[in-house]
This record gives sequence, C-alpha cells and structure tokens, in this order.
Amino acid sequence: MRAIVFKEWQQFPALEDVDRPVPGPGEVLLKVAGAGACHSDVSIFEDFTADVPGNMTKGFVLGHENSGWVEELGAGVDGIEVGAAYLVGPIGCGHCKACSRGQDTYCENAATNPYLGIGLGRDGGMAEYVTVPVRNLIPLGDADPIAAAPLADAALTPYHAIKTALPHLNGGGRYALVVGLGGLGQIAVQILKALTGATVIATDMKPEAMAKAEAAGAITVPGGPDQVARIREITGGRGVDAAFEFVGVTPTIATATGSMAVGGRLTVVGIAGGVHEWTFFNTPYESTITNTYWGTIEELHEVVDMYRAGQIIPEIETYSLEEGLTAYRKLAGGQLSARAVVVPHQA
Amino acid sequence: MRAIVFKEWQQFPALEDVDRPVPGPGEVLLKVAGAGACHSDVSIFEDFTADVPGNMTKGFVLGHENSGWVEELGAGVDGIEVGAAYLVGPIGCGHCKACSRGQDTYCENAATNPYLGIGLGRDGGMAEYVTVPVRNLIPLGDADPIAAAPLADAALTPYHAIKTALPHLNGGGRYALVVGLGGLGQIAVQILKALTGATVIATDMKPEAMAKAEAAGAITVPGGPDQVARIREITGGRGVDAAFEFVGVTPTIATATGSMAVGGRLTVVGIAGGVHEWTFFNTPYESTITNTYWGTIEELHEVVDMYRAGQIIPEIETYSLEEGLTAYRKLAGGQLSARAVVVPHQA
Amino acid sequence: MRAIVFKEWQQFPALEDVDRPVPGPGEVLLKVAGAGACHSDVSIFEDFTADVPGNMTKGFVLGHENSGWVEELGAGVDGIEVGAAYLVGPIGCGHCKACSRGQDTYCENAATNPYLGIGLGRDGGMAEYVTVPVRNLIPLGDADPIAAAPLADAALTPYHAIKTALPHLNGGGRYALVVGLGGLGQIAVQILKALTGATVIATDMKPEAMAKAEAAGAITVPGGPDQVARIREITGGRGVDAAFEFVGVTPTIATATGSMAVGGRLTVVGIAGGVHEWTFFNTPYESTITNTYWGTIEELHEVVDMYRAGQIIPEIETYSLEEGLTAYRKLAGGQLSARAVVVPHQA
Amino acid sequence: MRAIVFKEWQQFPALEDVDRPVPGPGEVLLKVAGAGACHSDVSIFEDFTADVPGNMTKGFVLGHENSGWVEELGAGVDGIEVGAAYLVGPIGCGHCKACSRGQDTYCENAATNPYLGIGLGRDGGMAEYVTVPVRNLIPLGDADPIAAAPLADAALTPYHAIKTALPHLNGGGRYALVVGLGGLGQIAVQILKALTGATVIATDMKPEAMAKAEAAGAITVPGGPDQVARIREITGGRGVDAAFEFVGVTPTIATATGSMAVGGRLTVVGIAGGVHEWTFFNTPYESTITNTYWGTIEELHEVVDMYRAGQIIPEIETYSLEEGLTAYRKLAGGQLSARAVVVPHQA
Repeated sequence: MRAIVFKEWQQFPALEDVDRPVPGPGEVLLKVAGAGACHSDVSIFEDFTADVPGNMTKGFVLGHENSGWVEELGAGVDGIEVGAAYLVGPIGCGHCKACSRGQDTYCENAATNPYLGIGLGRDGGMAEYVTVPVRNLIPLGDADPIAAAPLADAALTPYHAIKTALPHLNGGGRYALVVGLGGLGQIAVQILKALTGATVIATDMKPEAMAKAEAAGAITVPGGPDQVARIREITGGRGVDAAFEFVGVTPTIATATGSMAVGGRLTVVGIAGGVHEWTFFNTPYESTITNTYWGTIEELHEVVDMYRAGQIIPEIETYSLEEGLTAYRKLAGGQLSARAVVVPHQA
Repeated sequence: MRAIVFKEWQQFPALEDVDRPVPGPGEVLLKVAGAGACHSDVSIFEDFTADVPGNMTKGFVLGHENSGWVEELGAGVDGIEVGAAYLVGPIGCGHCKACSRGQDTYCENAATNPYLGIGLGRDGGMAEYVTVPVRNLIPLGDADPIAAAPLADAALTPYHAIKTALPHLNGGGRYALVVGLGGLGQIAVQILKALTGATVIATDMKPEAMAKAEAAGAITVPGGPDQVARIREITGGRGVDAAFEFVGVTPTIATATGSMAVGGRLTVVGIAGGVHEWTFFNTPYESTITNTYWGTIEELHEVVDMYRAGQIIPEIETYSLEEGLTAYRKLAGGQLSARAVVVPHQA
Repeated sequence: MRAIVFKEWQQFPALEDVDRPVPGPGEVLLKVAGAGACHSDVSIFEDFTADVPGNMTKGFVLGHENSGWVEELGAGVDGIEVGAAYLVGPIGCGHCKACSRGQDTYCENAATNPYLGIGLGRDGGMAEYVTVPVRNLIPLGDADPIAAAPLADAALTPYHAIKTALPHLNGGGRYALVVGLGGLGQIAVQILKALTGATVIATDMKPEAMAKAEAAGAITVPGGPDQVARIREITGGRGVDAAFEFVGVTPTIATATGSMAVGGRLTVVGIAGGVHEWTFFNTPYESTITNTYWGTIEELHEVVDMYRAGQIIPEIETYSLEEGLTAYRKLAGGQLSARAVVVPHQA
Repeated sequence: MRAIVFKEWQQFPALEDVDRPVPGPGEVLLKVAGAGACHSDVSIFEDFTADVPGNMTKGFVLGHENSGWVEELGAGVDGIEVGAAYLVGPIGCGHCKACSRGQDTYCENAATNPYLGIGLGRDGGMAEYVTVPVRNLIPLGDADPIAAAPLADAALTPYHAIKTALPHLNGGGRYALVVGLGGLGQIAVQILKALTGATVIATDMKPEAMAKAEAAGAITVPGGPDQVARIREITGGRGVDAAFEFVGVTPTIATATGSMAVGGRLTVVGIAGGVHEWTFFNTPYESTITNTYWGTIEELHEVVDMYRAGQIIPEIETYSLEEGLTAYRKLAGGQLSARAVVVPHQA
C-alpha cells in the first residue's frame, strides 16, 4: 500500500510503497478514512533529532489523528464490528495506573514504551491502512469519519484543557479567555460556547481568525498595549475565571497571566518555550497556572458526542494520499487556513 | 403606607394601612420596586396553622421575592448607596456555620429564629417599603428591578438545584430532564441551556408549557405510558445524567427515577408529598435522589449575572399594590400563566 | 491442574482436574498466590439460576479475588515481568466508554460480554493457574500476595464507595457511619480512619465485630430502639456526613437514613433487597441515597498502596486448594470470622 | 482599659490607657481571653508605611488572632449568649459576593473598607476588651479560649490552603510536602496527618523543628543539594501531590516546584517575594502553582472542630498584657519558639 513515511531526522517525509500491516493480538486493521496533518508532525521531521524524549525512533508512517473503517480483527478481539467507523485515541502501555484510567498520554511507562502513539514512533494513518489496539478505538456511528479525523488531537487537546477547568466556569457571570485562534483555539471557542454560559473573550493577531471566533460567539480583543486593560474592562475589572493560551511565547503568556481573576485557572497549551516570572505578588489570590498535554480516551468519546451534536465543527481541507506531501509542505510554510486531512480512499 | 398583610391562619390576606418601617442597625430601608407572589404565600394563608415549622408567627406583610431602591440606611451601614437598586436574598440568623457561607436557607438556628425570612414571619415586600439586613442585599446595577423580583425565589431555587448538579452535566454527550414546566421549570430549562451543553428533555401536561420549553431549546416528551421509554430512547438508552422534578407527586417522581442513567442525580424540587420506594435493584448504579430548598446569597449574585446577560428571562405580569389581592386570588385559583409581580410605586 | 469448578446451578462446586489454561493474546498466565472466597460465590452456586443477569453461563472455575506471579506471557504482551506478583482487577469488554476509564464494573457491554469477570463466567483463581488480560493487572511489588488476594473485592468495594463520598468527609468536624461490620465493613472502618479526620461511628449485632471496629478507632453504637438517637447524639444532633450500609435489609437501611445530616451521602453496599420509602419530608435537605458496585482498576492501584502502607490490613485464614471446598462450606454456613484465602501452592 | 497601640509607621507599639470600646449595631463586646502575636504585626510596625495596600490607617490596637467571652450585646444582636466564649474570624465589608460566602479575606471592597480586619486598621484584641461584628464570631463551646486564639490565623491559613488542595490528596498512595516548619508549618503537618492518608514529607533548616514534625508523624528531609532527589525518592520517583510552602523565598519555592508530581498543586503561603521562572517544560503535566491568603469564616468553624477533637494542638506561651511588648520584641528578634498569646485577664 502507499504511505507517507518519516525516514530520517530533519528530512522531509516521502510517499512510498510499504507492506499492508497485519493486526496483532487485541488489535484491528482500519481502512483509513482520514488522517489529519498536525504541526507536531512538522516538528518531528523538521526539528527533532535522535534525542527526542521517550522512545520514538525514526522510520514510521506519519499520522496521529486517524479515523477509519474496521477491515479485519486481530486475535482475541471481541465486540467490534467489521465495517464500522472508529476514531483512534492516544495510546500508552495500556497497563499502568494512568493508562488504567485511559490517560495514556501520561503513561508511566512512556520512557520505555517502544512508541509514543500511533503515528508517533509506530506506523500511523497517512496510509491506506493502519493497525490499532482495540482499547484505543472510539465508535463514530454514522458521523462523517473524514471530518472527524482531526478531533483526535485538535479537538481532544482543547477539550481536555477546558473540561479540567470547567469547575471554574460553572455558574452565572463567568469569563473565559482564549489566546491564539488557530485550529485548536477556534475549537476551544466552540467548546466553551457549547459547554458553559461564560462570556468568551478571544484574541489573535490575524483579523480573519478574530472574525471566525466572533462568528462562533466570542468577543474579540486585538493585541496592543491596552489588551489586558480591555480584557479586564469586559469582565467588570475582575479578570477571567479560566484562560487557555494556545501560542506559548512569553508575550502571549503575559497577556493571559495579566488577565486572571482571583481563583482563575490559566492553562498553557501552546508549546513554544515562553517564560512567566511567577511571584506571590503578581498572582491574583489562588489563581493557578499550569500546562496540559492531549487528553483521555474517555474524553475523546465526549468529543465525538459533541461532534455528532454539531457542537464541534472542525474546519478541514481534504487531500488525497498522493497530495499528502503537498499538505505537509503548506503546513510547514504556514499556508493552510484549515486542518489538512489526507483521505487515502476517495469515494 | 399600604401593605398586604397576612393576619390569621387559613384566612385570606388584607390590604391595610401600616406604619412605614424604620431600618434597624445593619439594615436598609428599600422603596419596593417589585414583590413576586409565590405559591408558598398561598400555602401560608390557606394551609398552614400555628403548627408551622420554625418560628413563623402570623401577622406580617407578605412578599419574599423582593427588589427595591435604597431609601434610607440604618445605623452602622457602610458601602451601600442610597438610590441604588437591590434584590433581597434569603435570611437566617446570620452567624451560624450555614449562614457564614451564605446558605441562610439551611440556618442552624431556624427553629429559634424569630422568622424564616423576609415575608415569612417578618414583614415582606408587598408594601411600599421594606427593611432588609445589608448582608442579604444583591446589587442589580442598571437592570430592571421589577422583572428581577421573582428571581429571588423562582430563579434561585432551580439555579441552586442545577448548580449543585453541574458536575453531572459537565462535558459532551450529557442529558438533563425537567419534569413540570411551571415558572420554576421554565427557568430551569433556560439555565440548563445557558450553562451546559446537555440535551435538555422537558415534560408537562400542558401543551402551551411544552411549546414554551421547546422555544427555549428543550426537546419535549408528552406524558403517557411510553414516557420513560421515550426519554430513554432520546438518550440512546442510557438515561439522563441529571433530572429536576418540579411537581413532587408520586407519578412524576416515578417518571424521573425511571429515566436516570448510571451515576445520574435526581433532585426533587416540588413539595407535594410524593413517595419513591427505593431499592438497590431499582436504582441505576450510583444514581442518587435528593431534595433541595431555595439557594445561597452568593448564588443569587450569579442569578442576577445571568439575568443581566439575558440568560434568564423571567415572565411576569405586573399588578399595583391595590390589585395585589386579585393577583393572590388568581394564583390560588391557578389562573396565572406568568409570575405576578406587585409594583407598589407606578412610574 | 486441580481447580474448584462451579458446574451446575444450585449445586455445590467440585474439586477437579482441568487443563492448565494457555494465555491468549494480550493476556498473562498467573501462578495463583491466593484466591479469596467471597459471599457472591455462594450466591452463584446456591441461589442463581440460568436467569442470572449478564451473560454468566455455568461451568467455570470459581475465584474472583485473585493474586499470583506471572508464569507466562501471551502474544503481544509488553512491559510485564515474568515472576512479578500481581493482583487481578475487574474486567469488562475493555473498549467501551466505562472500560476506557477503567470502570469495567459498569461496562456498557456487560449484557453481551461472554462473562462478568474472572471467576464470574470465565475461569477464576481457585486453581493452580489463571489467565488474565494485561490491562487488569495491578503490581504488588514486594507485598505479600496471599493476604492481598481479598483486596480485589473486599477492599476495593468499600474503597470505591468511600472515595466517591470523600468530598462529604473532607474537613474538620465530619462524621461517618458504618452499618454492618463483616469483612467489608471492618475494612471500611480502616479506610475511613486512614483517609479522613472524621469521627467514625460503627454498628453491628455481634459484640466481637464491634470490639474489632473499636480497636480500629471507631465509636460503636449497639442496635435497639435508641440506636438512631444515640448516633445523632454523638454528632451533636447534626447527623452523619456519609454513611456506608453493608447489610442491605430494610431495618439497617432505616438506621442509616435516620442518621443522615443535611447534605449527607448514604451508600448502600449490601445487596439484600431492603426498601426505603423516600419522601421529600423524610430526607434532610440535599441528603442523597445511592447504591454502588465494586470499583475501578485505578482505585485498586490505590488500595494496594494502602495495603503496602499498612493502612488496610485484611484478616485472612488460609486454606490449601484441597481444603477449598471446606472453606466454601464454612462460608455458606456462616462459620468464618475472617476471609478465607485458598493458597494453591504451599511454600 | 490597657491596650497595646500601634501609633506610628515604623515605630514600636506602646502600652497605653484607652477608652473601653462600645459595641456598635450588630456587634458584641468581647472580654479578651487571648490575643496571638503574629509576624504580620511586626511587619505593620517595622516595615509598613502610609502606602500600605487597602485602607489601613495607623493608630489602632494590635491583635488579629482573638478570642474572648461576650460581655455586652450591641443593638440588633440576636442569638448570642452573654458569657459564652468565641473566636474572632476575618472581616470584610460583609455584603459583597466574597463576603456573602464568608470569604471576607477576598472582600471585593477591601480597597475602600475603613480597615482590613480587627487589629488591622480597626482596634484589635491586645486589650482588655474588643468589639466584633456578630457574623465574625465562631463559638468555642467549652474549649480553652486562650490556646484557641492563634487558631484564627496560624491555623486558619494552613487549613484553608490544605482544604483547597484536598482533592489532590484524597485516596491511597498520596504524598504531601510541607516546606518551612514554623508555627504555621507545624500546624499544617497536624492537619495533613489528621485529614488525609498521605505520607507527609517536611523540611526546615532547624533540627528541633524537624524533630517536632517527626513527632507529629512527618518524614523529614534536610536541606542541601540532594533535597529534591531525596523527596522524589520517598515518593517512588513520582513527586508530591500537594506542597505547602511557608517560607516564600526563591530557594524554598524551588525545592517545592522541583518536587511536584504530574497534576500536583503547590500553594505558596509564605510571603517573601521569591520568584519561580515558570515554563511549560519545567512543569510536570497539569501541576499548578498558586498563592493563598488566610481563610473563610466557615473554615474557622472547622478549625475549631479540629481543635476540640485534639487534631490541632497549638503551641503557645502566654504573656500578660503588661508583658505584651516583651512578646513583640522577642517575636521581632526571632526569639520565640511558640506562638505568644497575650492574656489580659489572668485567672
């Protein structure tokens, strides 16, 4: 079968012919419906070296946002129907305490696992077929599996960050802030509008991203020296109860830390090395700052529920497997305005 | 001043001339903007006798859903502006543990307090003026104080029940059930739609109440032998994660208990003596049943936030003080389709 | 190998020679260290018929409280060491939403799974060897695996009930009630004393059970007409914040419901068909009643942590495999005062 | 009466004759049982200037950790018995949203209130008598009011920090860290041991403080280059689930941040201007850092419950009012090893 293979550190991937995989014990073979192209993939082939954390060795099919139809069952698989559509969730060792609650992303054996996920050290979905352990499958029912593919990361990541912060947003008179309105930030706005009654404030440097967030119900605030003052003004001076920062550089983290209310929770999702000089005095009482990484298998069930209810609407552009390298080139060059989904089997 | 006075157990109240009250230490005098007529008032003058729980003696001005403008400050009052509009919250002893967190409704000294609340043993808002301790005031800002009056009970009660149940509704794919679509039930639908992403299922015997709930975004299910089956079907067989029962008779409680999901929370708000025969076997695992009574002062701040944000829209009919007895007569006779608010000072 | 086999509904089990099992894909073979004899086993061979809920067909090796050493790895098993000691947790389909968070006991496919658990429709641990899926293993480290065996049910069940109720017990001045001081009730007292600062009140009909609970730090209250009054008196009249009822008959449930505080949580663990006539008026405000069943895989990790820290001390009597039927006979006859653990491989 | 008066910024207080105060409306007059001398008092008379935050003007009786017996009731006071012993809680405006839930320490009107608390801008308890609003009183029952005095701050502050962090410590296998074993740190160890099953790790530079924490059940770790490694080793490499930092300088904050587990919560209580350079990469996933200030009135009820149950045992040295200045001199000089409590009325 054809597949997009990451072969060497700091080298662009290649479209190649590889053997169709065989599902191992407890796994299924999925006929790939869609595979999302994610910025992390670009980091893998542009930035990473053999020193990458965990045990991710080079030489695998890319694609960690995958959906597909069950084609074949491995040994010992029960209760899964051939032909049914599934989304693929994060995957750890499967038997540590974190994995026992489906939080494979915080797997206690990550350092010794042979891979970090499907498409992350183990062959992923940028191919005609992919194998997946049965415990990492999320049923899609009759929902469109192609548009669903990016949910596995681009929706699960903000969903997890927001769900963890919901106790801060439960009730009348709450305010949420979204900094950075790329793919994840836009979905964060959708999730916040659907799951809370909070006033959602959003900010980005691109006017068209701001317009999109406004259409989804957010109040937008442009950058500039008055940004924090303007955000505080919207909240009646009090600050925001929860903030989600999707950029991760020092100035955008500062926008968020400057906007917090007493008891507010700031989650930095964007990974860009930004620094915040925390002191007792620059922190509103009991306001917290933290980071986050991806989400749980159970939460991906709930993301699919929101997708099926029309509460999350991923914006995608589809590409054939042959056009997949073009998609990655555009992504690396910042030329995409929606999530690129590679669709190996055209209708 | 003119006031509607409850004078004798099981006797209809009277419109009388009484002395304008003087605010005591730590109190303010409010010029009444609106006073909601509540079913509990009818119970007071129709059903209750001297055996009423707590220390509520007869002989007081009715009205426990009150708003108004500050007319005068009592001794020792700081930080309250004359002329500003306030809503009046529940009131207990003010110094027990429950009152210390603003849950005056569960005051530990309720049995020995001289009254159960303003308009409940102590002179209420069905008058030109009313006195209120400063710690029970909720600022209304520039919001309409007349339509706000019923929020103090008719919105605070469902708000408290829902807020307590929010952990059950946090996330995608959740279902809520509202049984009984009178004033409180309709506001429950509004609050659930605003604060959660849950599918809201609602039921009532009156088609016009069902239509109103549908307009507010609920899916309605009529009564009848298939009711529970139909509710379960909407939830994909799983049952509802939270139910709010505003009637309180045995058959409507049965509708709710029959509709619960594993881990669901049923709150019976309606006080009508209904019975549920609980057993281990008729309870989905970890599904709970409980009751509730009114809400906290802090929650009333949040109710006002939702009112100001247009998330709660009380439906009212206004009456002059002179027409107040008519309002009570209609209420007792079941002839009102909206909350009656008595407005002592016409514009 | 030798094994204790449940062959026919309402027929006492038999010690037989059966084939040593072979671990399937994703499974390990455990050399059994200990297998606890549980009252549910007695229900299986004394009370149940082919109408049993779920898909538990007759004809399997008993034993659902199991520990052992890894003897052999099935296909596709990674990260598990041969020779290491493990406890065995509950087991569902492994891929529904409930199983994805390790709550296999509430598996959404329970009705169609081929079994309800190891030793519950699938061959259990009353044998020299047993096979277990890798995701249901809990590492025991260097802790004694024999005394650990009953933790899998007799400790996990109260642990789950208590952990769910901990928000009610968090803080100073809290009260907990344990009704029924058999094996699970005694462990409940240990867990409550270790994890909370609550005053633990305990009750049972047997003086020696009461003495044991007192030694573990509980205050005991005997049965009789003053029981509820005495419990309330200990709490200063307020009632208990959490109650755990391990008997399940109507009178003991009544002791618990009569003892609840405002906002208290009653969990009925005992399955004996008792009835509670719930009404708004006999329920302290926001007090809940619910049931529960077993616990999650993650919680079993935490139970093992408590066992290793000496916070849970199971009381056991050991029996050889040959004496296993004797153990079941004593259990059925109410002649055991500690958990019987069958130890197939004597030191 | 005699009182210790703070008269001028950066000037040592004086023992003077002042008028006995008269309780205002809604207040009581307490005959002082005990008044704790707190480090904040030293900051007030040594460090602060007219630029102090909030509205604390100079010229008041010191003492914000107070207990006493009711001597006289002001106007409008109900349900308080003359002669009964009470502890005094934090005090804000009494009618904002934060005060409505008894969190007067986060009063929204703090900037415009005439004082920050009793003994903080308003006359405090270092005197024969003090006036207190009734909503800030906590009943002590028959407990010793003298030893209770410091609970109002020295126990309430760690109690609030710990109670907020309890969800992180609920369950088996948890670890807590206390950095800094002065008065508050020692009480933190007591509270953690009483309310949780966590392993409590404690550290300080003084061996006698370490010995005291060990006697209370903590495992201690000395300072030095291996400190963080040693703490992590005790936790099996995982880090601590909750840390409480009572010093507040950069190196001690670094000890805490370096010791956190995934999802752990670090609360900095010590106010000393320390800095933590937060980045995504130096933060275990979802580990939070925050600050805190004092606690709520409701929590002070629970602190008193723990005191009465013997779960909190404050260590005090008593001084007469005449010796009060000596106590402050020792406190400022670091010569106290227990909390100094001024006892104006000797037995």
